[in-house]
Amino acid sequence: MVSLNEQFLKLPESYLFSEIAGRVKAFKAAHPEAEVIRLGIGDVTKPLVPSVIKALRQAVEEMAESKTFRGYGPEQGYDFLRQTIIQKDFMPRGISLETDEVFISDGAKSDIGNITDMLSRENRIAVTDPVYPVYVDSNVMGGRAGELLENGQWSDIVYIPCTAENHFIPELPLVCPDVIYLCLPNNPTGMTLSKSELKKWVDYALENKILILFDAAYAAYIQEEDIPHSIYEIQGAKEVAIEFRSFSKTAGFTGLRCGYTVVPKALTIKMPHREQVSVNRLWNRRQCTKFNGTAYIVQRAAEAIYTEAGQKEIRGIIRYYMENARIIREGLKEAGFEIYGGVNAPYIWLKIPEGINSWAFFDRLLTECQVVGTPGIGFGPSGEGYFRLTAFADQTETRQAIQRIQEKAAGRF
Amino acid sequence: MVSLNEQFLKLPESYLFSEIAGRVKAFKAAHPEAEVIRLGIGDVTKPLVPSVIKALRQAVEEMAESKTFRGYGPEQGYDFLRQTIIQKDFMPRGISLETDEVFISDGAKSDIGNITDMLSRENRIAVTDPVYPVYVDSNVMGGRAGELLENGQWSDIVYIPCTAENHFIPELPLVCPDVIYLCLPNNPTGMTLSKSELKKWVDYALENKILILFDAAYAAYIQEEDIPHSIYEIQGAKEVAIEFRSFSKTAGFTGLRCGYTVVPKALTIKMPHREQVSVNRLWNRRQCTKFNGTAYIVQRAAEAIYTEAGQKEIRGIIRYYMENARIIREGLKEAGFEIYGGVNAPYIWLKIPEGINSWAFFDRLLTECQVVGTPGIGFGPSGEGYFRLTAFADQTETRQAIQRIQEKAAGRF
Repeated sequence: MVSLNEQFLKLPESYLFSEIAGRVKAFKAAHPEAEVIRLGIGDVTKPLVPSVIKALRQAVEEMAESKTFRGYGPEQGYDFLRQTIIQKDFMPRGISLETDEVFISDGAKSDIGNITDMLSRENRIAVTDPVYPVYVDSNVMGGRAGELLENGQWSDIVYIPCTAENHFIPELPLVCPDVIYLCLPNNPTGMTLSKSELKKWVDYALENKILILFDAAYAAYIQEEDIPHSIYEIQGAKEVAIEFRSFSKTAGFTGLRCGYTVVPKALTIKMPHREQVSVNRLWNRRQCTKFNGTAYIVQRAAEAIYTEAGQKEIRGIIRYYMENARIIREGLKEAGFEIYGGVNAPYIWLKIPEGINSWAFFDRLLTECQVVGTPGIGFGPSGEGYFRLTAFADQTETRQAIQRIQEKAAGRF
Repeated sequence: MVSLNEQFLKLPESYLFSEIAGRVKAFKAAHPEAEVIRLGIGDVTKPLVPSVIKALRQAVEEMAESKTFRGYGPEQGYDFLRQTIIQKDFMPRGISLETDEVFISDGAKSDIGNITDMLSRENRIAVTDPVYPVYVDSNVMGGRAGELLENGQWSDIVYIPCTAENHFIPELPLVCPDVIYLCLPNNPTGMTLSKSELKKWVDYALENKILILFDAAYAAYIQEEDIPHSIYEIQGAKEVAIEFRSFSKTAGFTGLRCGYTVVPKALTIKMPHREQVSVNRLWNRRQCTKFNGTAYIVQRAAEAIYTEAGQKEIRGIIRYYMENARIIREGLKEAGFEIYGGVNAPYIWLKIPEGINSWAFFDRLLTECQVVGTPGIGFGPSGEGYFRLTAFADQTETRQAIQRIQEKAAGRF
């Protein structure tokens, strides 16, 4: 008789975005004339840039002709893209990588979820809190989370709070974990670490043989100096860290699906009764067994981001979104809110005034300003008391939304 | 200290296709003038059909404009494709499905590998032998295979031999498994089951509460009557089976990456201390947590396969490949070989003459005829004594290959 992975049954229904959708729908039904502005979901709105479209067009035509048609590609991705990534994303930062240390995928979410395949069930997982829910949920499925407690935490997961009290700088945990997820720049708080702050984590991992799963999906949004774009800017990181990158927010690929994962060969782990085991070889085996590569045309599109024209175009889009971030950040500060993030990330993390929780704030923002955001509690227990706004909407709408909040804010929020 | 999933370490290096590549390379280095014809790897060679190219072009242009740009799509796939699949692949065969019973993915290999996420480690797995290696390897990673024995079998896996002796019709195993993989039409043997033969398996699964993982990647190649295209043509199958489909061999999507998986809501499993659990809900949760949907442009391309023009075009390609299959089948029969498959599948399974194993046969075919195939042992212990040829090459080359074998065969093989 077949039996299911009972860990799946522990997961509560993922209700965050469906609950948001439900509340917005109900509001619109009651107020059909209301013009609701969505600053909630982290999806891009700008179309693909001309260089990417050009590359897609060309690649589609290649697929139409026998001579240039491409069937199965390498599971790890085409060398043309892997090498371009190394030359453009890493070499300028003094990081050298070999081609087979870079794995192209259909997006960072797949890789971040699937990476847990390689981990034994015994690992103790640590996450910063609030956090991108996939880190926790994929480990619940893998049996590493324990039981869900009343406070919203999982019994076996180490939570590292990042709040205004510690300036969103995670502190080394009291209980030493085996695996740590770090997302920098951070979703949802929009905050980052300096090189010296990140170095503390790399040193801690080296000392305690901890694996760091480093999510750098928002690296392209970094504006300030001294903020590492890659964890491999820190000495020794290749021995402890896997890095995930995405073209979703870098170049509007949320609907095109492409990302990559770096697994350095220097990352080896001692197993009982074994020599050091290469994590790179294990990940390669995982991908060859359960994945068949990313679409050729999509990989050509990703390559085009790195051309001179492509870089200019995507930087223009990022500037546009970061101008939105500035509008939100400064506008809400003027309105008297305590604001974090939005400087090196497309996310603005807003401290909710005392005496109201994040779902109640959601409702007030929706009913009084017709603006949709995301309640902080949706990202973990330490997200309560906060609220996420994103910089991906249309600029005129973003201005309108902030204006509405400013007008209503005086003494009310 | 981090620890790895030790099950990964049990997997021997996957050497089949790299060993083939190595031997071909060595031969070509020694004989630079030789014209080697490849009938080994199961990759398509015909370019994408005009209807698919047209849909891709249109979708690319949509992604270039704000008004028509698409960001994140549903993790489960767009309704336009899910509904088209139901209407065109299932309704004409008397099978009704709801939209949310169909999950679009980046290919059947991903889904077949990832489906094991949902299974507890305790399940006993059964495979027909020879078999597509992903079924076994993904369960090795999941800790369900036990240890690799000297005979090439895994100690905890139930092998169901399919050989000429039983006419490639798998017999119900002596040890009752919890999960059975069935690939029909079969890779590598090219053989199929009739409806009444498949019904035996569905009844067996119903009676013993076994989950059938039904791989129908080659359904489009079925030519004969009474061969089920979908397992859901068999009464009761919705209660026991998940079906995997692929556009790779149906429409040349090996480089474009799209497939789908059907998880009927009628498939529920009783868990200890629980009510019946819906497998559909579990798979949905898995996909929402670890997958972000397939590229919009690729889903539009897949939709175009189902238009009248698209159907005509892909049937033309399938006819072309099946003509290759006929050339191989009949040509090798004439040359005195015992031949299976190639009637309802693009694979021809050749019985190797007594006294020579499948790697030795590979070498003789390469050196004497300059033809590359795949040794049967690469697909499992019961594959020894057999050899796989594929129908996906250029037709002129296919004819040449068979002619060479015919010329050399007399008294030598």
